[in-house]
Amino acid sequence: MPPPDPITAALLVIGDEILSGRTKDKNIGIVAEFLADLGIELREVRVVPDEIAEIVAALNALRGRYTYVFSTGGLGPTHDDVTAEAVAKAFGVPLLEDPRAIALMLQRIKSEDLNAARRRMARIPQGAELVENAISKAPGFRIGNVIVMAGVPAIMQAMLVAAAPKLNTGRKTISKTIEVGDMPEGAFAGELSAEAARHPRISIGSYPSYKDGRFANQIVVRGKDAADVEAAAAAIESMLAALRAEGKDKYTIT
Amino acid sequence: MPPPDPITAALLVIGDEILSGRTKDKNIGIVAEFLADLGIELREVRVVPDEIAEIVAALNALRGRYTYVFSTGGLGPTHDDVTAEAVAKAFGVPLLEDPRAIALMLQRIKSEDLNAARRRMARIPQGAELVENAISKAPGFRIGNVIVMAGVPAIMQAMLVAAAPKLNTGRKTISKTIEVGDMPEGAFAGELSAEAARHPRISIGSYPSYKDGRFANQIVVRGKDAADVEAAAAAIESMLAALRAEGKDKYTIT
Repeated sequence: MPPPDPITAALLVIGDEILSGRTKDKNIGIVAEFLADLGIELREVRVVPDEIAEIVAALNALRGRYTYVFSTGGLGPTHDDVTAEAVAKAFGVPLLEDPRAIALMLQRIKSEDLNAARRRMARIPQGAELVENAISKAPGFRIGNVIVMAGVPAIMQAMLVAAAPKLNTGRKTISKTIEVGDMPEGAFAGELSAEAARHPRISIGSYPSYKDGRFANQIVVRGKDAADVEAAAAAIESMLAALRAEGKDKYTIT
Repeated sequence: MPPPDPITAALLVIGDEILSGRTKDKNIGIVAEFLADLGIELREVRVVPDEIAEIVAALNALRGRYTYVFSTGGLGPTHDDVTAEAVAKAFGVPLLEDPRAIALMLQRIKSEDLNAARRRMARIPQGAELVENAISKAPGFRIGNVIVMAGVPAIMQAMLVAAAPKLNTGRKTISKTIEVGDMPEGAFAGELSAEAARHPRISIGSYPSYKDGRFANQIVVRGKDAADVEAAAAAIESMLAALRAEGKDKYTIT
């Protein structure tokens, strides 16, 4: 029996503030970890400005290609919040004030405070399901395979948690990290490539970091089967030990 | 005389480790700020895995659309470093060991340490200019309008600095941030939208944040002309002061 198709996802980050450098995105890392834990493979991320045409084009490119598309940002009450309008346009459905969303918002604010700007946050593409959050009460939504979430990380996380029970999930990827220390990547790259060829069901990544004038390396072994991951990791540990024993773990910096 | 065309850019972040959540990207924020300081508008970011077909497709989609494309990641000596190969393929040119790159690398390591894996890092698409970095010596490169950089943030920054003198730059965007405090977005969103309509050359963003159970808001005013930015910011400050004076700066949370 062939393995089941992987469950895949893309993330669309919507916001001028990320592209201008004003806000440093935190949502990519949060969504990546959350989906990995569910066995959903995040395959692509895009960041686009608060412009309807850009959001529609990105959504339509992504939603046909991946099992799910998650978006963050652009759901607030101000004029630069255009995500709901863009999603409705991408799906070709009307954007209507949703009584369910109004009811949720009235759990937090009084009806006399529900002005026109706040009512914008209750506009939901026709046919969407709401995705609630306990923090601000103004909901995100899911339409088709697209899950539309707020940009504020705490609210986004609450919406991820709320949307999760209705997602199809796959087999979780297991990963094991090998601390290589200061042995340079170039010293083990050839042997690591051979190990990667010997373990075709395993993904092997080598990740240098640089701090205070020194490099350090980690090798990450990832796969769906725990025994496969352990076997590949053990083979790599042996390979590294052999290089150290042969004195090939250093090079002379001139 | 019409204003000159803006100088635009896209960033392509290459790396399984960002998509898996293992590494939290820092390069998007660094590149965004760096380009904003040069007057180059970052218009789109994509994150793709270490797969040649994905990198080629993204590069070809982006390089026709923006003045520049910057990429980060995938330039190392290991088997999962496939960026140079993908860029050569996207441009339809051979990927050749470059004597200039070898010479740079030999500034740091001895020739007996220049093994096959390290020589991979000297493979440069034919016709590209090198982009040097003082840290690891292994260069990035520029081919056409695409600037290809390492993924380690310190090395990536060194390459950005090295590539910058040859970039066409635009008029820098000036921004002014107004601290709104805890006045909710929904209290000023209608009036802010009216201000945005009155200042068409100015981009106005409203950014809530949430910490320890409290919201705080900032309004950011951005434009190319300092007087325009000051005028819009002053109008928004007056509008907020008027709302406070009318007692419309709070709502009752039920």
